[in-house]
Amino acid sequence: MAECVFCSMAAGETAAVVVFDDDQVFAVLDRAPLFKGHVLVMPRQLVVTLTELPAVEIGHYFGIVQRIAAAVPLALGADGTFVAINNVVSQSVPHLHTHVVPRRRKDGLRGFFWPRERYVDPDEAESFAGALRAAIAVLP
Amino acid sequence: MAECVFCSMAAGETAAVVVFDDDQVFAVLDRAPLFKGHVLVMPRQLVVTLTELPAVEIGHYFGIVQRIAAAVPLALGADGTFVAINNVVSQSVPHLHTHVVPRRRKDGLRGFFWPRERYVDPDEAESFAGALRAAIAVLP
Repeated sequence: MAECVFCSMAAGETAAVVVFDDDQVFAVLDRAPLFKGHVLVMPRQLVVTLTELPAVEIGHYFGIVQRIAAAVPLALGADGTFVAINNVVSQSVPHLHTHVVPRRRKDGLRGFFWPRERYVDPDEAESFAGALRAAIAVLP
Repeated sequence: MAECVFCSMAAGETAAVVVFDDDQVFAVLDRAPLFKGHVLVMPRQLVVTLTELPAVEIGHYFGIVQRIAAAVPLALGADGTFVAINNVVSQSVPHLHTHVVPRRRKDGLRGFFWPRERYVDPDEAESFAGALRAAIAVLP
């Protein structure tokens, strides 16, 4: 048996309710959905976080995420979707998975209504942006 | 002035703290970050939700999202990232934007610790999956 539960599902060794499956991408129902119809979309091959997804797979993988995000309102009569990836922190399984969650107006999911911070002044914002620009520049 | 605030930022008509910019993709600091360094990544051209992003742009757009998600821990010493798209519901600006948020262990963001639902039985899960598979099959 694969040690990773998602690898094990992809290999058919662990039961899962499959909603999509091709040679690169595998999507199943989350067993404890935020709302029923909550899908997890993962690369078939073990990739831990978004950062490790090979460049050549990005287009296909997110094309499937896009297709599932279009299917969810169509199939379930949802008003919209929440599409999310937790990398490392809050990541329950160390195998990249994108959550596609049906959303309805007034469904009670607080989502982005968490408390927000504020930059002290424009200089503080600029210092964060400068650090980010420098890191983006050195990455492939 | 563009009517859409993100189009206006991309056109340089509205002030923004830019962290990445090319001919297709534009990324700025969120002015009210979940945590400082919270970035919004958007296609330069107006696309309302993920569903409308042209297939030919998916690879490049999510390649930039990936690069920014790698840059955030590198630049800010974060432990991980939260990468998310709200489509329609909880979407504050009707111009596709992917949130890339720095995460640290025990940072207090409840994230996926919202209450979860349960399928009543395997048949209920299968009925949701069947509806999703049918919708996925008819989409391009």
